[in-house]
Amino acid sequence: MKILITGGAGFLGARLARELLHRGQLDGKPIEEMVLADLYPPAADLVADARVRAATGALIAQCIGWRSEPFDAVFHLAAAVSAECEANFDLGMRSNLDSTRALLDALRGAGNVPRLVFASSLAVYGSDPGLPLPAVIRHDTLPAPQSSYGVQKFICEQLVADCTRKGFVDGRNVRLMTVVVRPGAPNGAASGFLSSIIREPANGKPAVCPVPLDMKVALASPARTVAGLLAAAEAPREAMGGRIAVNMPGLTVTVGEMLDALETAAGKEARGLVRFEPDEQITRIVGGWPAIFDNTRALRLGLEPDPDFLSIVRAYLHERAPAIG
Amino acid sequence: MKILITGGAGFLGARLARELLHRGQLDGKPIEEMVLADLYPPAADLVADARVRAATGALIAQCIGWRSEPFDAVFHLAAAVSAECEANFDLGMRSNLDSTRALLDALRGAGNVPRLVFASSLAVYGSDPGLPLPAVIRHDTLPAPQSSYGVQKFICEQLVADCTRKGFVDGRNVRLMTVVVRPGAPNGAASGFLSSIIREPANGKPAVCPVPLDMKVALASPARTVAGLLAAAEAPREAMGGRIAVNMPGLTVTVGEMLDALETAAGKEARGLVRFEPDEQITRIVGGWPAIFDNTRALRLGLEPDPDFLSIVRAYLHERAPAIG
Repeated sequence: MKILITGGAGFLGARLARELLHRGQLDGKPIEEMVLADLYPPAADLVADARVRAATGALIAQCIGWRSEPFDAVFHLAAAVSAECEANFDLGMRSNLDSTRALLDALRGAGNVPRLVFASSLAVYGSDPGLPLPAVIRHDTLPAPQSSYGVQKFICEQLVADCTRKGFVDGRNVRLMTVVVRPGAPNGAASGFLSSIIREPANGKPAVCPVPLDMKVALASPARTVAGLLAAAEAPREAMGGRIAVNMPGLTVTVGEMLDALETAAGKEARGLVRFEPDEQITRIVGGWPAIFDNTRALRLGLEPDPDFLSIVRAYLHERAPAIG
Repeated sequence: MKILITGGAGFLGARLARELLHRGQLDGKPIEEMVLADLYPPAADLVADARVRAATGALIAQCIGWRSEPFDAVFHLAAAVSAECEANFDLGMRSNLDSTRALLDALRGAGNVPRLVFASSLAVYGSDPGLPLPAVIRHDTLPAPQSSYGVQKFICEQLVADCTRKGFVDGRNVRLMTVVVRPGAPNGAASGFLSSIIREPANGKPAVCPVPLDMKVALASPARTVAGLLAAAEAPREAMGGRIAVNMPGLTVTVGEMLDALETAAGKEARGLVRFEPDEQITRIVGGWPAIFDNTRALRLGLEPDPDFLSIVRAYLHERAPAIG
């Protein structure tokens, strides 16, 4: 089995790659080769694995070569993030829409109908002036995205669904929840603070919270998110419930509850490192995303949300430990 | 006021152009210039009007020039039709998606935030393996298009909505019902038979009906369709009910009821000219479109469906008369 991960040097892509290499198989078939495509080279531990090949550079340019290089499974995670796309419309259209089209063209050209997991996002949902969000998001809730990032993700879902209907790929659209706790430096995502208000204080550093304490958000740990991507890749088509996207299971918490869990796991001093600086744009973007999901369809894939936020914080502290010691 | 109509040499575009030139104004402002863009030149009566300018050629190429030619109102009707797009995926992507992007780029470049009416279609709706169509389509029904044409129309709606949110254009997405009776030769639309089973017998010619008599369809006359496009262009933003698309009002009839109306208006011999030759692909595509719509939002724009199919047939016979005589 030959696997392609776009965004393979990113946080989620690298984590997915490590999990796959550790398992050694996908859908019961041994992994012989894994291509990690990204603007940046993959981490050293990944490059050191004999099965891994780095494909470093812009995605659109690489896609031309892939027309004659068939993959058995593709995880398409590469994307410009929400705040970037809002600030630079053309960048978002190129990085998210044009790149996905180029990838679909390449996979169609290769002709072997690979399994394709497209990482969409809860950002497809938003409150349109003519269509307020319902209290609970179901699989048949009409997305009315209120950010260019959300629009681009929703458009790519449509393309993946149509290319699946046409038999060019065997695509699966999964909408990821906001992934928390992300390690490393903040990226350009509007939701970046949801990780930094835990990560920075847990490492003795100050952090800024730009939204009110009572804002509700839907989150998933990195481990659950990777489990969701793998479940979507391995599911028989019937279990996906058609070609429409599956909302990954989300844990609903308030920002205040997140900080309570931080205090429980890392102490009062840690919580004291978070200061509040309201940011209207971030509050608008992240506050516009839905926070409560009906997880029925995700459950069909065997996926459940994280049990509580404290376990997410503790898993982060545990994983981070070796790097600190 | 300077108006652009893409697809301006087509049946609907020409009819819209004539209606606008006859009115002499849009939204209370006099029409000084009208550009009719199409692959084909406009009809002679339109070219003869001093206000009309033909822009004949591929839309994408023309868009480059429009970046420095601001329009006050744009009706974007140009599209490859459903059966064409199903037969030739790349043609549909280019003619529908790429052309609309090029047009949006041009209008954004011109910088004057023109009013833009995008003609979408009821073909955005379809019955996904995981999401059967509800009995009645509402404004918040999730489209799960089951044709490349429907996917492309739905994607363009998203782009128009986002460019509106960003302030590049003042866009309005309207989903047209199947327009019946279309004059002239059949085009590549899967729904073409819905016109030809009336038009051909009314003119003494045989016609083929490829679907069963009990198939329900949602139709609108050419006159009501043009009225809907104009209402969308003139409506204040609030009346549009947000940026999500408005389903134009549709008259629900069965194919059998259509033939009954033909018989009433044009006689038993006319009906006898229709023979049945089942076509699985056309039955699947057209039968997959919804036939019953909740027209509440269209009513807010002052739009109602045609009263009955007999009046549609009679209007066609009346309009056709001069050309015959």
